[in-house]
Amino acid sequence: MNSVAVTVDDLNIPNLGPREIPSPGCARDFAAEGSSWHSDGDRIVLDDHMDSIRVAMKNDIDPPSIELAGPRREIFFNPAETCIAIVTCGGLCPGINDVIRSLVMQAYHTYGVRQILGIQYGFEGLDPSCGHKPIELTPDSVDNIPTFGGSILGTSRGKREVKVMVNRLESLGVNMLFVIGGDGSQKGAQAIYEETQRRGGRMAILGVPKTIDNDIMFMDRSFGYQTAFAAAFHAVISAHTEARGARNGLGLVKLMGRDSGFIACSAALATGEANAVLIPEVPFKLEGPGGLLHFLEQRITSRGHAVIITAEGAGQDLIPDAEAVTDKSGNRLHSDIGLFLKEKITEHFKARNIELNLKYIDPSYLIRSIPAAPEDRIFCLNLGRHAVHAGMAGKTGMVVARWHQSYVHLPMSLVTRGRRKVDPTGDLWRSVVEATGQPARMGV
Amino acid sequence: MNSVAVTVDDLNIPNLGPREIPSPGCARDFAAEGSSWHSDGDRIVLDDHMDSIRVAMKNDIDPPSIELAGPRREIFFNPAETCIAIVTCGGLCPGINDVIRSLVMQAYHTYGVRQILGIQYGFEGLDPSCGHKPIELTPDSVDNIPTFGGSILGTSRGKREVKVMVNRLESLGVNMLFVIGGDGSQKGAQAIYEETQRRGGRMAILGVPKTIDNDIMFMDRSFGYQTAFAAAFHAVISAHTEARGARNGLGLVKLMGRDSGFIACSAALATGEANAVLIPEVPFKLEGPGGLLHFLEQRITSRGHAVIITAEGAGQDLIPDAEAVTDKSGNRLHSDIGLFLKEKITEHFKARNIELNLKYIDPSYLIRSIPAAPEDRIFCLNLGRHAVHAGMAGKTGMVVARWHQSYVHLPMSLVTRGRRKVDPTGDLWRSVVEATGQPARMGV
Amino acid sequence: MNSVAVTVDDLNIPNLGPREIPSPGCARDFAAEGSSWHSDGDRIVLDDHMDSIRVAMKNDIDPPSIELAGPRREIFFNPAETCIAIVTCGGLCPGINDVIRSLVMQAYHTYGVRQILGIQYGFEGLDPSCGHKPIELTPDSVDNIPTFGGSILGTSRGKREVKVMVNRLESLGVNMLFVIGGDGSQKGAQAIYEETQRRGGRMAILGVPKTIDNDIMFMDRSFGYQTAFAAAFHAVISAHTEARGARNGLGLVKLMGRDSGFIACSAALATGEANAVLIPEVPFKLEGPGGLLHFLEQRITSRGHAVIITAEGAGQDLIPDAEAVTDKSGNRLHSDIGLFLKEKITEHFKARNIELNLKYIDPSYLIRSIPAAPEDRIFCLNLGRHAVHAGMAGKTGMVVARWHQSYVHLPMSLVTRGRRKVDPTGDLWRSVVEATGQPARMGV
Amino acid sequence: MNSVAVTVDDLNIPNLGPREIPSPGCARDFAAEGSSWHSDGDRIVLDDHMDSIRVAMKNDIDPPSIELAGPRREIFFNPAETCIAIVTCGGLCPGINDVIRSLVMQAYHTYGVRQILGIQYGFEGLDPSCGHKPIELTPDSVDNIPTFGGSILGTSRGKREVKVMVNRLESLGVNMLFVIGGDGSQKGAQAIYEETQRRGGRMAILGVPKTIDNDIMFMDRSFGYQTAFAAAFHAVISAHTEARGARNGLGLVKLMGRDSGFIACSAALATGEANAVLIPEVPFKLEGPGGLLHFLEQRITSRGHAVIITAEGAGQDLIPDAEAVTDKSGNRLHSDIGLFLKEKITEHFKARNIELNLKYIDPSYLIRSIPAAPEDRIFCLNLGRHAVHAGMAGKTGMVVARWHQSYVHLPMSLVTRGRRKVDPTGDLWRSVVEATGQPARMGV
Repeated sequence: MNSVAVTVDDLNIPNLGPREIPSPGCARDFAAEGSSWHSDGDRIVLDDHMDSIRVAMKNDIDPPSIELAGPRREIFFNPAETCIAIVTCGGLCPGINDVIRSLVMQAYHTYGVRQILGIQYGFEGLDPSCGHKPIELTPDSVDNIPTFGGSILGTSRGKREVKVMVNRLESLGVNMLFVIGGDGSQKGAQAIYEETQRRGGRMAILGVPKTIDNDIMFMDRSFGYQTAFAAAFHAVISAHTEARGARNGLGLVKLMGRDSGFIACSAALATGEANAVLIPEVPFKLEGPGGLLHFLEQRITSRGHAVIITAEGAGQDLIPDAEAVTDKSGNRLHSDIGLFLKEKITEHFKARNIELNLKYIDPSYLIRSIPAAPEDRIFCLNLGRHAVHAGMAGKTGMVVARWHQSYVHLPMSLVTRGRRKVDPTGDLWRSVVEATGQPARMGV
Repeated sequence: MNSVAVTVDDLNIPNLGPREIPSPGCARDFAAEGSSWHSDGDRIVLDDHMDSIRVAMKNDIDPPSIELAGPRREIFFNPAETCIAIVTCGGLCPGINDVIRSLVMQAYHTYGVRQILGIQYGFEGLDPSCGHKPIELTPDSVDNIPTFGGSILGTSRGKREVKVMVNRLESLGVNMLFVIGGDGSQKGAQAIYEETQRRGGRMAILGVPKTIDNDIMFMDRSFGYQTAFAAAFHAVISAHTEARGARNGLGLVKLMGRDSGFIACSAALATGEANAVLIPEVPFKLEGPGGLLHFLEQRITSRGHAVIITAEGAGQDLIPDAEAVTDKSGNRLHSDIGLFLKEKITEHFKARNIELNLKYIDPSYLIRSIPAAPEDRIFCLNLGRHAVHAGMAGKTGMVVARWHQSYVHLPMSLVTRGRRKVDPTGDLWRSVVEATGQPARMGV
Repeated sequence: MNSVAVTVDDLNIPNLGPREIPSPGCARDFAAEGSSWHSDGDRIVLDDHMDSIRVAMKNDIDPPSIELAGPRREIFFNPAETCIAIVTCGGLCPGINDVIRSLVMQAYHTYGVRQILGIQYGFEGLDPSCGHKPIELTPDSVDNIPTFGGSILGTSRGKREVKVMVNRLESLGVNMLFVIGGDGSQKGAQAIYEETQRRGGRMAILGVPKTIDNDIMFMDRSFGYQTAFAAAFHAVISAHTEARGARNGLGLVKLMGRDSGFIACSAALATGEANAVLIPEVPFKLEGPGGLLHFLEQRITSRGHAVIITAEGAGQDLIPDAEAVTDKSGNRLHSDIGLFLKEKITEHFKARNIELNLKYIDPSYLIRSIPAAPEDRIFCLNLGRHAVHAGMAGKTGMVVARWHQSYVHLPMSLVTRGRRKVDPTGDLWRSVVEATGQPARMGV
Repeated sequence: MNSVAVTVDDLNIPNLGPREIPSPGCARDFAAEGSSWHSDGDRIVLDDHMDSIRVAMKNDIDPPSIELAGPRREIFFNPAETCIAIVTCGGLCPGINDVIRSLVMQAYHTYGVRQILGIQYGFEGLDPSCGHKPIELTPDSVDNIPTFGGSILGTSRGKREVKVMVNRLESLGVNMLFVIGGDGSQKGAQAIYEETQRRGGRMAILGVPKTIDNDIMFMDRSFGYQTAFAAAFHAVISAHTEARGARNGLGLVKLMGRDSGFIACSAALATGEANAVLIPEVPFKLEGPGGLLHFLEQRITSRGHAVIITAEGAGQDLIPDAEAVTDKSGNRLHSDIGLFLKEKITEHFKARNIELNLKYIDPSYLIRSIPAAPEDRIFCLNLGRHAVHAGMAGKTGMVVARWHQSYVHLPMSLVTRGRRKVDPTGDLWRSVVEATGQPARMGV
């Protein structure tokens, strides 16, 4: 599922330098409570297939392994002197507020940290020229926020000058930064981490990967993803209802997924109502005997209705020169695969004089702006808890994630190396092909 | 709320001619069960304001009144010889399947009717040239259908030749037709009624008015409307979340409502999150000191975010010559008020160099294709029950509706005389203005 | 539906005495905004049946009529000197927070009132000996509260000394009190009103009737009721699923309704899955050929499963001497009709050696503690708006309600005169009997 | 998490003997479609901790590993001669219908099997003396069933004579049986498997483990579990609302979990609103300074409200001799920890003269009878798909499950060896203790 070759060294987690004062210890003594501490030596194998294990055994070297998350007996930061900043970047995603709440609750209650700042509007909030003020976060101020979608801190897209941001963090007295954001934002966090290292490395930079497309590597899944495709589920059911409600009805649904088709696949599998799923990872043709239009025509004329799901990033190669079809108003009409398909399908049926009742559904923001569902709430809670454990222990330049059901630490540099994709030869795509009845390769 | 002047005569309900055989009676004896029969003399006043009543009293004439629905002791049709047809026309709306189920259950269980046909794809299904076959409906086949949105019969738009349809009904042996459909479809039903009258009037034609826009006259509300705006509710909440999530965020939501802004108003009131509501009934200006753009700019610059709801039929006068802005692909880009506003607002803020993060949400079919919520289920049940009571009693050329909390009979010719609108001087619009803080008249 | 005879005088709304200073006018000028004022002479008839109207016409006297709600041009209170208190009493109900929010928003924004107090824990909060402090309510503090169920003010049951409460109101400087509560609480409000009248009548006492059972008279429905039975809907669906899932499965659901069976009836109608509904208004027998047990046995042996809904107040006459069956722990086991039926039904089938898989469902608080659904949100918004209009106009000793789709003023003394009941001879009960197939009178 | 020591041999999956005829091959050629086959040698390690791997490496033996699920190139059964039976046993759980649908769809469409029988009411349906007839299952008959909770086949509890059941399967011509059921049912399936082996082993017996308590070993989670605790989530929110709504309010929620407290823990973590969670795995005391009552008293008197979640199997040691507190009616009042706690807590506060408003919520069947949520739908789909792959390949005496995000084959004998429990020293319990603020060990 992750096509990047990974070495043992790729998985090392940076630590801040040696503490100058003795460890103050955690606010809670988990061992005394009957629980247990974790050490950096607690690791799981990255690849749990026996084939990989046997290769390692044969060569008598450890297979690549990942550091497990959890509370460390020795912590780096003195809670009384710790100042945490939290920033949320990029598009909205269910669960951001849950992660914020968890970070605050864990830092406050488990470690006794009292200074927690919310940075407003993403990295903009770390650039004084934008004029956003940080806001103080307390258990009371974050208690109810998971009830609402979005981010109470606001977000923004785009980069800011790294040195400016680190200056700002230093002037605010921050020594631990949590970046809740996607691929681009974690690259930004990595740059901040590198700058802090250059300046002596007394600041911990940690990430909580956010991607509604579920396309960050080395993770079981990303937070908010389950909630998001459950919302997409309803859009597909609506498309099916509309398709059934008219003669030769076609429900065409565009879902998120710029580079990866996970939401489209999941929505198809969960509903069982899609007849074709189009994703960026699997090219397809429109024309010709094995193409989408032919497949669709057959389906419509034999069954009287059909449902198609397209990820927004599917079929980009099919759309001719984007500029050419931009209309006068500047709307990039045709870079939108949904509208492009709508037009092409309509033309095809018109040319053949077959009635078609096409209903186009683009749920867009309705999917990403909802509050996290219960399972995602727990997931966000745990990501936040373990991010704080890691930060207090002096980990930096890393993100928290879940891998094979365990919470782990991953280097930022690793997770931003590529994108997770649907494997066209794997079981997920096979299950989609089985569920839809579509050809595994549509005309390609 | 209904601007049409109504006379006493306008409210007369046609009855089929005298039965040739003695009334067979209802399958159930309600009176014996402790319940009661209704007679055609049971009526309520159309206008219950004391002012109207006093005018009538002064002139010593009855004020206009409406016939109450309910079982009649004498019925016109012999259940054993009754053949019912049900047809669903126009756009989908929550609750259509509930009405179908109720019609079938009531006819079957309460009256003992055994021949019930479902006409497929609207009036098309009554035109043999379209090739659709009627399907038999039974309590078993309709039992679970309210679980699903849409119409199990399928729908279509548009007219068919009246004589062809009546011929078809006669050849199928139908003597009672239920038309579930909107304004246009009830006009079609009226034409069928008139044709059956010309042919001797042995067939009962009854309507169950359907309009997701809640714009049919003389009704407390239309079925599915509550369910629909509850779905619109979530779209507005999403818009608000998106607006809050970005600096100078603007959530722009387009909701149904071609001629009437009820859904837009209801969604605004229920969420309490809209800052402006645009509806067809209340003209507004874009430019100028009292215009939308100015209002919006003030709101955004003072509060940092805003939410606008527009009904699809709002501001049509603002959109210049539709053809001129149709793009090469033939998309009528600008007749869409949502996209038009998106463009105009974006231009305005760009011209003033104010950052704007506009998120456009068009939930469209997601709102109308869902199953009916519990309250609408009961409403549909009752509409179906009373439609069957009316049909069995030999009523024709009429629709069932609820008026002032009572189920009533209304002449088809009356309800298709105009459209229900939001009164710009009434309490509904006043409450919207109060809730949003927008000017009552925006620049007009 | 309301068995109480009502005279014209019963419907008079008390007004506070003449103002000593000139009317300050409303903060908004509705007329200037294109809207309109209402006067006390705007009224609708209480009974809109033509029969009643004709009687009045014959006798040449006005039929009983109700004052319409809405803003008055002349207001009694000077907003700058107005201090409002809001108190919530009795059991929770969806929408309480919506009413609170609406009262605050309307008073603050439409009239400019700046002193608004929330009284904590019901009438307890007006008794200084209980030690609860009032809290200040502002638009900001109430903005999000409809997101949550319950009451942000807390509630309590039971009476407090009237003079103590009025003393407390006076010492707080309150001149307008809104009581959100049920039958008992409105009686309490009436007592407070009478005491304030004795003291010179400078304080307005207004009620917003609250009853999850929908059993307050002279109202289309009570707020929260639709939300509540939509939750009950799901309990009945669960009961049906459980009943279908086992051989001779019986789903037995107990729903709210101490004196009135509205929720039980609505849940049965909306689901279409109940085979018997038991309500306080319709007595039934357990034993004998027409009794519940016999009916149930027939249904189970012929169909293999059944669902029964009982209102909590149904069949109280069947439960023998409550004390006798109280267990040692003091649990009044058998005053609970649900557990009583569970026991009796189990015994019956055991005695006949027929397998029975009974699943008992008591959703209780799950129904009443949820947030209001969108339609109820608008309803609560309007109740709050009109309560403030009435209070500012100097109305007192009254409640706001909706009657025949219009918002109206009703004297407190009227609505507390009895309880609204399901009419065993009316259409609601008839529809239940039709939907369930149960006998209209079960063995009685 | 699983306290059972497992050897390599424990993980062997039985295969039916050598086929007598050449393999007919799968109906689809996955390889030709660009996908891939799986072989029995594709395995993952059971324990992916580096510590375990290193022990294996040191001893130069393979660590225990699990066979991966997936389609095999060579299949055992000729689809044209395959007759499948599906049986559902034990309590309802969200997703049963999804698994049935997936089994049918996969067998029918991917392999071309045409004989698929649904056995009614669990193992009863395999005992001819019970009189239940199998029903034919087809893609059409199962297409919509995930819309409904429960099991379309019905279930029952308890054992039936193994030889009788195998006789019945043989007489029906069944050569592949899928048992959807919990721990007890999988033991039953194991007995059936052993009997079929004794008779020559031509029948494949496969299990799909079902447990709403998530307490079957060696699985990431059980199907329906996420859906179930999402429903429990709402019960806890209601309890919190009720607790906040009254002075010294206490919401006490009893959730499923006879032997394992997973649902209780998950509901607490997802809501963030519980102040104490009681589970079977962690004993607690009522009395004494560290006991529940003391903790609760402190919480109530300091904060004014509290929420407690108890798993139904918690604190069973505290309930004195069950018989002694059984009331006259034979209700085993006190074996119910919820009612027991309700009584004890009420007594405690009464004795101390502290007001307490306790609201007891037992959502019971409301949680288990709902349809599966989207994520569970996909999970069920995959369990069904892989169960059919395994059965067609001639696997037997095994169940399908997910382990560390991979679908795997596990011997029935292994998963029924014990129960999965919440580890009182692990991270799940630690997170609950952190989230609630309760002592890790309550007085014990």
